[in-house]
Amino acid sequence: VNSVAIKGNAVIGQSGGPTMVINQSLVGVVEVLRNVQGIDKILGCRHGVRGIVENSYIEVQDMPIEQLDRIAQTPSAALGSSRDKPDRAYCQRIFQSFEAQNVRYFFYIGGNDSSDACRIIHEMAKEHDYELYCFHVPKTIDNDLVLNDHTPGFGSAAKFVAQAFMGDNLDNRALPGIKINIIMGRHAGFLTAASMLARQHPDDGPHLIYVPEVAFDLDQFIADVDRVYAQYGRCLIAVSEGIHTADGTPMMTKLAQEIEQDDHGNVQLSGTGALGDYLSEAIKNGLSDKYGKLRVRADTFGYLQRSFAGSVSPTDSIEARQVGHKAAECAIAGDHQGSITINRVCSDPYEVEFQCVNLADVAGKTRTLDLEYIIDGNNISDDFHEYINPLVGPLPVIETFPAREAVQV
Amino acid sequence: VNSVAIKGNAVIGQSGGPTMVINQSLVGVVEVLRNVQGIDKILGCRHGVRGIVENSYIEVQDMPIEQLDRIAQTPSAALGSSRDKPDRAYCQRIFQSFEAQNVRYFFYIGGNDSSDACRIIHEMAKEHDYELYCFHVPKTIDNDLVLNDHTPGFGSAAKFVAQAFMGDNLDNRALPGIKINIIMGRHAGFLTAASMLARQHPDDGPHLIYVPEVAFDLDQFIADVDRVYAQYGRCLIAVSEGIHTADGTPMMTKLAQEIEQDDHGNVQLSGTGALGDYLSEAIKNGLSDKYGKLRVRADTFGYLQRSFAGSVSPTDSIEARQVGHKAAECAIAGDHQGSITINRVCSDPYEVEFQCVNLADVAGKTRTLDLEYIIDGNNISDDFHEYINPLVGPLPVIETFPAREAVQV
Repeated sequence: VNSVAIKGNAVIGQSGGPTMVINQSLVGVVEVLRNVQGIDKILGCRHGVRGIVENSYIEVQDMPIEQLDRIAQTPSAALGSSRDKPDRAYCQRIFQSFEAQNVRYFFYIGGNDSSDACRIIHEMAKEHDYELYCFHVPKTIDNDLVLNDHTPGFGSAAKFVAQAFMGDNLDNRALPGIKINIIMGRHAGFLTAASMLARQHPDDGPHLIYVPEVAFDLDQFIADVDRVYAQYGRCLIAVSEGIHTADGTPMMTKLAQEIEQDDHGNVQLSGTGALGDYLSEAIKNGLSDKYGKLRVRADTFGYLQRSFAGSVSPTDSIEARQVGHKAAECAIAGDHQGSITINRVCSDPYEVEFQCVNLADVAGKTRTLDLEYIIDGNNISDDFHEYINPLVGPLPVIETFPAREAVQV
Repeated sequence: VNSVAIKGNAVIGQSGGPTMVINQSLVGVVEVLRNVQGIDKILGCRHGVRGIVENSYIEVQDMPIEQLDRIAQTPSAALGSSRDKPDRAYCQRIFQSFEAQNVRYFFYIGGNDSSDACRIIHEMAKEHDYELYCFHVPKTIDNDLVLNDHTPGFGSAAKFVAQAFMGDNLDNRALPGIKINIIMGRHAGFLTAASMLARQHPDDGPHLIYVPEVAFDLDQFIADVDRVYAQYGRCLIAVSEGIHTADGTPMMTKLAQEIEQDDHGNVQLSGTGALGDYLSEAIKNGLSDKYGKLRVRADTFGYLQRSFAGSVSPTDSIEARQVGHKAAECAIAGDHQGSITINRVCSDPYEVEFQCVNLADVAGKTRTLDLEYIIDGNNISDDFHEYINPLVGPLPVIETFPAREAVQV
């Protein structure tokens, strides 16, 4: 039986946008910790750091493993999540609560903001000579954490995007027209790029892919659509919600009648169809002189990308559990702080290893898609397939008749 | 070996909005017909009736069964689809093409418009003493064909809606707010009602469900949301794209800046986020005085409902194949025309039987949701579960912590 250096309680929290596998990480931490001597209570804080300052916890150490396993397989954050980004004063309250309740182990599952919260709280504890072990457990469908090959949550969201595009490509082929799909991703285009997995035949869409890593130009966009439509008689387009003009202004900001911002100063991108509708109108206006009445449609995949029940990537699911294990094991091994990262050892056969890096190295930093994957500012290269395929896992079988060939009887 | 009375060719077509299982019906017809003596060529017409008048066909009789099976499992219409609603002149061209090419067997997979096309063509053939066997094979995610307990395509679309709401309910619980999801369905609320499958615990959403069968009142809607939000601190809402005011005007018509209509005179409802965004704004405007800044989001599920790859209902898949078999078998048995219907014999254990009714009895008629399932104009009763559950099949496991209970340590 393992034991920890300092006897005390452990707190686990979930933060930011939920994913399909974030509960795997929660259960991963719990199942290691609950066999450790010296850990008294294992507490899940409700709605992230808010649960800590509001003293709202769930005791998880005595739950039957069958129940924990079912929770692990359930999408979204079972403990509740939070968009709070704790500043120093907020962290002060967290730290005081930890001190008062002899919390010695803190695991925060989230993106780079969560990593930063861990970092601040850990430094505060050091200043007060209070021995506190702080770990950031990675999670984000955006796949935008530095020092990581990829992050838990991304593979399942990417699988959803791939399945959606596989089906929508066939729908667009059956009833040809111009179709835009808006995909999540504020700064990083990984999830939008995942749409390329739907391409299996030469004429398959998405035919155009726009990511936030390159500037978006509306006139060029319409010219791109024109070219594809002239070639295939249809056009399927993947657009990241985070696309912006050359001066860095998000397209959504241009559209927002009433800009809604969250506590991080971010403009609301999701939960509205405005961007897709705007681009639809722009295409109709730009190309109707040439083509006459065009069938143009836009769908915004929205929250389904991160929450759809019953379609996780098996690899993502396993790795989300493993980063939880790794964080707990690092705490037991005596590391005082860290962020768990995933490194790829090999793509074929797929193999990864887990590491624990300094919180400060991950905190507040954003990774974006390698520019080498982006072609002409409007597409993703086939090389991306090797990167993303093992993260998503097997996709449905697609078989259809050739698009153009048809016998005349 | 079976044989048919009149030696000739067979044509199969797919029409209207594709579904996840419409290719099962195609393959169902083909696999019966290709073992029948007297059927020469089995031809798939490209893009529905348009392929007939344009003489654009695919020969399908000699395809390996493995390939046909893969096509059957692939979403969307492999032959291509069409929104053309053939009038008499159009049907005349179809009939002339059939006569010229000795087509004696016609199978049209689609909704009630397709049934009507079959009816007109069959009558024309009778007038010309040309022996033609015409069958309508049912397909629609809207589930709105009369004389049917349900229609192929609906179960899989309903499964998508259920999975989406299961996940989104948990997402809305993790990050509480008001969330609207817009679901397909112009006149019939079946698909929107399927969202009720996501409810497993007393506080689970959708908390409100709006279908086109009852008039929609914006003030009442806001009052409903207010009541739920006050109770649960969150509110998940299912809204049919087809909702309309008491005078019958679709809400979407009120919104459309530029009303786009298809050949059937229908206003475009799908492929835009406008309705969801409009309702979001209405809630923000209506309730911000009471609650302050509200987190309100809207997603429009869009085309994913009918095309998402890899998540069909097993029952739907099997039945879609069986209606194809039944249509071919009726032709062999010597029936001259008909529409295949599904009747439920029993819900538990689930059992159905297939029938062939007169085309005229199905053509151009629309079935809607039984009013007895609709509660207070804003919800669906639990009784609907018995109806819909066997059509959707097993859903993912959901396990989570109680919503409100939390220990104070």
